[in-house]
Amino acid sequence: MSTAVAPKGLEGIVATTSSICWIDGDAGVLSYRGIDIHQLAERSTFEETTFLLWNGTLPTSGELATFTQHLADAREIHPDVLAFLHNLPKTASPMEVLRTAVSLLSIYDADEKLTTHEANIRKSFRLTAQIPMIVAIFDRIRKGKPVIDADKSLSHAANFLWMLNGEEPSATATRALDIALILHADHELNASTFAARVIAATLSDLHSAITGAIGALKGPLHGGANEATMHLLYAIEAAGADPVEYVRQMFAAKKKISGFGHRVYHTEDPRATHLRRMSEELGTAAGNTKWFDMSRKIETFVKAEKKLNANVDFYSASTYTTLGIDIDLFTPIFAISRISGWAAHVIEQHDDNRLIRPRADYTGPAYPAPLTPIESR
Amino acid sequence: MSTAVAPKGLEGIVATTSSICWIDGDAGVLSYRGIDIHQLAERSTFEETTFLLWNGTLPTSGELATFTQHLADAREIHPDVLAFLHNLPKTASPMEVLRTAVSLLSIYDADEKLTTHEANIRKSFRLTAQIPMIVAIFDRIRKGKPVIDADKSLSHAANFLWMLNGEEPSATATRALDIALILHADHELNASTFAARVIAATLSDLHSAITGAIGALKGPLHGGANEATMHLLYAIEAAGADPVEYVRQMFAAKKKISGFGHRVYHTEDPRATHLRRMSEELGTAAGNTKWFDMSRKIETFVKAEKKLNANVDFYSASTYTTLGIDIDLFTPIFAISRISGWAAHVIEQHDDNRLIRPRADYTGPAYPAPLTPIESR
Repeated sequence: MSTAVAPKGLEGIVATTSSICWIDGDAGVLSYRGIDIHQLAERSTFEETTFLLWNGTLPTSGELATFTQHLADAREIHPDVLAFLHNLPKTASPMEVLRTAVSLLSIYDADEKLTTHEANIRKSFRLTAQIPMIVAIFDRIRKGKPVIDADKSLSHAANFLWMLNGEEPSATATRALDIALILHADHELNASTFAARVIAATLSDLHSAITGAIGALKGPLHGGANEATMHLLYAIEAAGADPVEYVRQMFAAKKKISGFGHRVYHTEDPRATHLRRMSEELGTAAGNTKWFDMSRKIETFVKAEKKLNANVDFYSASTYTTLGIDIDLFTPIFAISRISGWAAHVIEQHDDNRLIRPRADYTGPAYPAPLTPIESR
Repeated sequence: MSTAVAPKGLEGIVATTSSICWIDGDAGVLSYRGIDIHQLAERSTFEETTFLLWNGTLPTSGELATFTQHLADAREIHPDVLAFLHNLPKTASPMEVLRTAVSLLSIYDADEKLTTHEANIRKSFRLTAQIPMIVAIFDRIRKGKPVIDADKSLSHAANFLWMLNGEEPSATATRALDIALILHADHELNASTFAARVIAATLSDLHSAITGAIGALKGPLHGGANEATMHLLYAIEAAGADPVEYVRQMFAAKKKISGFGHRVYHTEDPRATHLRRMSEELGTAAGNTKWFDMSRKIETFVKAEKKLNANVDFYSASTYTTLGIDIDLFTPIFAISRISGWAAHVIEQHDDNRLIRPRADYTGPAYPAPLTPIESR
């Protein structure tokens, strides 16, 4: 048996081919199907970007209209799943609820037993439409508010804000969320996407893969970083402290700051550029740039002190907070976006599959170790 | 950025160190913590083997008694989870139910927010005790039979058979299942275990990792192989065909036979040795060696014709069927066993963690592709 030892965490190991996402970590480039993320953030929508991720090319206006309609039409939650959400403890974390509800959805999915390209696309429409609904519905249930019906005439981003808040969102808020969804839609073989592909590669179903991806995203080293950033901003405010002094003391105490640095980018994370701008614009529009100003000071200090760049998570914290979104919904919103990329990767995996099954370098007791009789141990 | 391209499916790539399981695919050796699987199958129990997997050493008799008691004491299903199982469609597949129920269990787990070694052990006891209960309870619910309470005085294997069938199992049946659970308990970085480690490596929780692992095991390239073997045996019986002729015609039609060959073993899968023996012994004890005889003929033919060895799945099909277990419970029983190994791997991953995040080799449209205005597409 010939084996090759990879660096820990498979860092720098090419685990598969993929035509979905291209990243140049040194140049700070992120692109979907070859199209630069800056172009998409400035000129596309989440619906168009999702079409691009799933189909490989941009839609014509007719294709985009059909795609948008299919996605809106899929805004239906099975009554048993709705009842399930009502019966949960109100204290359940939104990510646990989302992971469980997505797993439950497969039981009611007409295509559950199929893993064909066409069935995967149909399931992807349903999951992409219903994941934001689950997040919004459970948030209202836990707060004792009435559940809001989906509005199929609204855009994907606007319908989520509508179902979350029960009021028609402003154009500014809708566009800010739409851009955030575009920016987070895919990122090559990040841990949750890789988990989805490992699961899909057993020829298991899309719901299994997405359930696993949500579980991976839940971890603080992945989806949890912007929550940690916001907790830091709140802690600084509660202490009435100077942000730079506060962070300086954290560094002196050997503490890490969330939202800086990235395994792949060695320059500015291109997504951070847009989130910084949105954080400032939303703050200005709301007449409250407190979180943006605090973030900017921390960013400048960390860059000077540690040569670390802000990543996608750093400014999404102040952006989402300024949009009035609770801190424990940050990671679910990441999932609301990333489902489009997860689905694209599962479809690609199933279209040309091979089981993903690496080896381990054994470091335990030498073989054959004795099975000593229990009375002699 | 330096990258190294791995073979497809990460075949032969060492993705991590691990002290849990050592396999020599050329020599046909499988060992847990250095102890040969044949020793364990002949002289250990599932409880003792699970202690070994989690702790790295064999227990003293006092340690084993405490461990066994902890595992039995954890045979308690939260009433909300029991109600959830009662409310599911009776047609739901057992693996979807198990995946969803394990995800749901975390919402009721007192240690949900913790990923310490101690908390992981406590959660592992609960999941190992409750996964078989969920499988047995849902099987009885879907068949319209009353749910059987756990018997904490029984062994792990016996309690499962008791809760499944509502009658005290024979010593032969209990020992056969116990051995099957030992044989399936771990297998290094198989796809479901690797999925669990990828999820755990974001510092997500044990339930997230196990939920993902169940999703991976559900795939026909992983847990589903013994189901396919049994469907083949049933098809041969229904056709009144000669097993060898039937398989010969399948080969002529370029069809694959499940239960043969293995990514890692190039000789006999050491687990197959025991399952072959159990299949024969259980058949003889039941006065019906039909499935064993048919399996043996197919094995001999496939070995001669294709140089392929029977793997762990091939004889587990006839073994489980002779134990009176339904075909769609084969993969759940795999999970009932593998939870012990999954838990060991998640604990090991969390004890010395690094995010698992490989790269992809991009094969899509060249960057920068234009974002052509929609009216010009």
